[in-house]
Amino acid sequence: MPSVTIAELARRVGGTITGDVAGATRTVTACNTLMEATPEQVSLLHNAKYAKELETTRAGCVIVAPGGAAGVTRAQGMPPLTILESPNAYYAWQKTMLLLHGYHQHAPVPGGISPQAVVHPTARIGKNVQIHASAVIGENVEIGDNTYLYPHVTLMENVRIGSDTVLYPNVTVYWNCIVGNRCLINAGTVIGSDGFSYAQADGIHHKMPQTGNVTIEDDVEIGSNSIVERAALKTTTVGRGSKIGNCVVVGHNCIIGPGNLLISQVGIAGSTNTGKYVVMAGQVGVNGHLDIPDFVRIGAQAGVMVNPEPNTEIAGSPAMEATQAKRMVLNMMRLPELAKRVKELEKQVEKLSPKGGG
Amino acid sequence: MPSVTIAELARRVGGTITGDVAGATRTVTACNTLMEATPEQVSLLHNAKYAKELETTRAGCVIVAPGGAAGVTRAQGMPPLTILESPNAYYAWQKTMLLLHGYHQHAPVPGGISPQAVVHPTARIGKNVQIHASAVIGENVEIGDNTYLYPHVTLMENVRIGSDTVLYPNVTVYWNCIVGNRCLINAGTVIGSDGFSYAQADGIHHKMPQTGNVTIEDDVEIGSNSIVERAALKTTTVGRGSKIGNCVVVGHNCIIGPGNLLISQVGIAGSTNTGKYVVMAGQVGVNGHLDIPDFVRIGAQAGVMVNPEPNTEIAGSPAMEATQAKRMVLNMMRLPELAKRVKELEKQVEKLSPKGGG
Amino acid sequence: MPSVTIAELARRVGGTITGDVAGATRTVTACNTLMEATPEQVSLLHNAKYAKELETTRAGCVIVAPGGAAGVTRAQGMPPLTILESPNAYYAWQKTMLLLHGYHQHAPVPGGISPQAVVHPTARIGKNVQIHASAVIGENVEIGDNTYLYPHVTLMENVRIGSDTVLYPNVTVYWNCIVGNRCLINAGTVIGSDGFSYAQADGIHHKMPQTGNVTIEDDVEIGSNSIVERAALKTTTVGRGSKIGNCVVVGHNCIIGPGNLLISQVGIAGSTNTGKYVVMAGQVGVNGHLDIPDFVRIGAQAGVMVNPEPNTEIAGSPAMEATQAKRMVLNMMRLPELAKRVKELEKQVEKLSPKGGG
Repeated sequence: MPSVTIAELARRVGGTITGDVAGATRTVTACNTLMEATPEQVSLLHNAKYAKELETTRAGCVIVAPGGAAGVTRAQGMPPLTILESPNAYYAWQKTMLLLHGYHQHAPVPGGISPQAVVHPTARIGKNVQIHASAVIGENVEIGDNTYLYPHVTLMENVRIGSDTVLYPNVTVYWNCIVGNRCLINAGTVIGSDGFSYAQADGIHHKMPQTGNVTIEDDVEIGSNSIVERAALKTTTVGRGSKIGNCVVVGHNCIIGPGNLLISQVGIAGSTNTGKYVVMAGQVGVNGHLDIPDFVRIGAQAGVMVNPEPNTEIAGSPAMEATQAKRMVLNMMRLPELAKRVKELEKQVEKLSPKGGG
Repeated sequence: MPSVTIAELARRVGGTITGDVAGATRTVTACNTLMEATPEQVSLLHNAKYAKELETTRAGCVIVAPGGAAGVTRAQGMPPLTILESPNAYYAWQKTMLLLHGYHQHAPVPGGISPQAVVHPTARIGKNVQIHASAVIGENVEIGDNTYLYPHVTLMENVRIGSDTVLYPNVTVYWNCIVGNRCLINAGTVIGSDGFSYAQADGIHHKMPQTGNVTIEDDVEIGSNSIVERAALKTTTVGRGSKIGNCVVVGHNCIIGPGNLLISQVGIAGSTNTGKYVVMAGQVGVNGHLDIPDFVRIGAQAGVMVNPEPNTEIAGSPAMEATQAKRMVLNMMRLPELAKRVKELEKQVEKLSPKGGG
Repeated sequence: MPSVTIAELARRVGGTITGDVAGATRTVTACNTLMEATPEQVSLLHNAKYAKELETTRAGCVIVAPGGAAGVTRAQGMPPLTILESPNAYYAWQKTMLLLHGYHQHAPVPGGISPQAVVHPTARIGKNVQIHASAVIGENVEIGDNTYLYPHVTLMENVRIGSDTVLYPNVTVYWNCIVGNRCLINAGTVIGSDGFSYAQADGIHHKMPQTGNVTIEDDVEIGSNSIVERAALKTTTVGRGSKIGNCVVVGHNCIIGPGNLLISQVGIAGSTNTGKYVVMAGQVGVNGHLDIPDFVRIGAQAGVMVNPEPNTEIAGSPAMEATQAKRMVLNMMRLPELAKRVKELEKQVEKLSPKGGG
């Protein structure tokens, strides 16, 4: 089990010790929540909602944003607290978690490729690739070094998977699609099923051939049971370093930029492009053929019908600038009162008007 | 085929016979809808929308709530109706369905464990466990008695599954997660994939290790293609007897209380807790770090941003008390009229004001 | 590689040549976007948003709606454009795509049925059926001619699959369910898991037996990770020629009519029926026990609580007639201004009133 002194931790993750500075010589061995941490454990104050827990936590050290522990009075009988202030507290916490816990180590597959995996003889498999039982690898598939395939993965013909990538159980990658290096794709996610596209004539929905593919660039992570549809022409793209949640649907011909965050249950219709570092909260829906510029943040459940301005925050369905949306909701909640005031005005004006005898 | 007299049925499921009481000596053998039931079949009036069907149904017996058949006049030529009044008519119907039809009996797997299943030699398998072809069971997995695993189930290392539980095809349980006794988890559902959690620094989303797990308590049922994310620390929990629909996402570190009903496509962000018997209708979204108290009912498509009061009904996005939400919608629908009234007032006041020459 | 003269293409897909008519003797070999097409390629103007690209496209021929290229001035130095006007341009494009590209040809499975597929000896398999490794076919299953099953498909006992149907990886069809001819069901979709139905008594949600099944009629296409729940009684039905997107949930006992389009992430609660050619845009939610009549179109994210009129367009949550919904949104956006006007009126009336000294 790794361990580190608090002083050394501050050096490694970037931060300065305050509060009980003398306590920084102590050793910590794990991360835990404020309420449950022991003196050998580090904790994090990430959300102001939990600030009160600083009064009673027994953690050996708490990571906070600069000034985040100011004004805290420890509960009676509690020893002083060793504080690690970091300008990016959440990132310092991430580095602490990595140092003391690390990422999950995938169980080695004996022999690398299970004899119960089904691998087409034309597939080109890199070094140190591990393939579990019941994965099925099609013709001309190419898999880079150190990539790990869990059971029940299907890679259809001509698929290319990069190096150091993990495909969890039941991931399906349709023909000709491409997944980059250092990607994580969770269970049940589908890359490259046909776009939803039909031409209606004579009461029949005639299926449009979907001749393109999907490109998942490097360092992309996708949750479970999400779908990226293949393009009608060219390639549906998820940009480098973007992270996608669960049950998300990315429509055909979309180009998702780099560094996007698409939270669970987001749906993006076909041919919409996003810039870099776009954030969509849970259950957002985005219309087709839109351009979502760089740094746009979209609130949960928003319905985006028109192109937003760059670097804005939008919300609501239909989506509008977030402060406008908030004002609108406030006004909506005051509507009953407004209606009463109008009624009162009508009475008064009636009295004032000549006929009213006022 | 089981059969029972209507009188005996009333005794078994709890209820009293009214209407054609003499008819209670007849025998029924199956359940059916009001419109299609024959005299040998039982039916249910569950939704007032279908009350008119009591006039013409040919069912041998209809289960209704107390007084539910009051005022019904049978159509000309139709024999009188035997009514089974029960204080909990839907539960009486459930017991009738169980008595006459029962639950599905899963097809026995010859030999119990298919030779095409892949079971790690360290796995501890209980008595009468059945495991289909192509299920993959990892190191140190523990499975209780009478549990049934369909094809393409993946249980990663150290997973514990209780007794009398059914995992349908393509269910994936990630390492270290726990599923209780008498659970039903439907096809494609994923237990324990990583929570969506990144620390942003230098334009990169740094993945937070998710070192916790998931605990699914006893008697939980989960639909198809849903996801329960593993905790960053500790355990994401679905409480005893809770029932979850399809394509539902439960975020990391949530604690879902006992007896909750989460209908299809609900999404709950991370670290939110719910009390007991919370009900969320379809497509509800709940923000992270909230506490949803006991007995709260949340209307379809609601977006919950703040903690509701216990035992309230909330609706809307953003969600508010349901009667307030309804009033607000009504006022919104009258907005065009209100705007007209304000315009009319402006005209009248203009006339009344000195400059207006009134 | 297929090729065709533009003149011949116009004859085959239905349309007339305008613009550079002489150019119709040239040959085209593929389809491409307006911006990337070469003189040997055909393109489509489908969305007015892209009309400006007609000025610079190098496509050999562009398919447009009648008059769709009127008023286009080609950029300096660009040769005149050969236009194929078609009354149903999108259908003409679909036929062009089919002619020049065709649908994907599924990789043949050597021997038809993989020796690593698991097929119950009682299953009745048609001619030219192909079954991949790790598909599992249960007792008494029936599969029609030319049907193609990808890896990890599970067909439980008594399932019937028609002819010329494709089931992609990880599709699960529960016992007794029926899938028609010429259907396409994409990866991870689940047909026939239990409806969400419990009778609450004594603090326990008692599971209602779901004794019915699902019928998917001919020519239905379903996206990835969708769910059609089995009926409590009788059969949940998806009508002939209907097309369903990804992560869609169709509740138990629903009867979806023919020719419906249900876009991704739609959720329909139990016992709701739809007429023919109903369209639901993304993330629509529909309450249970409703009747959605023929030709109704429902806007994205709408929440349908009551039965709409036939052949109407509805939108909003709660859903109302679309033009009313639009007007309401406009009025909501003007609410802050309306509130100001009411405040101003109150001031003026205060001045005018006797006490106010007016």
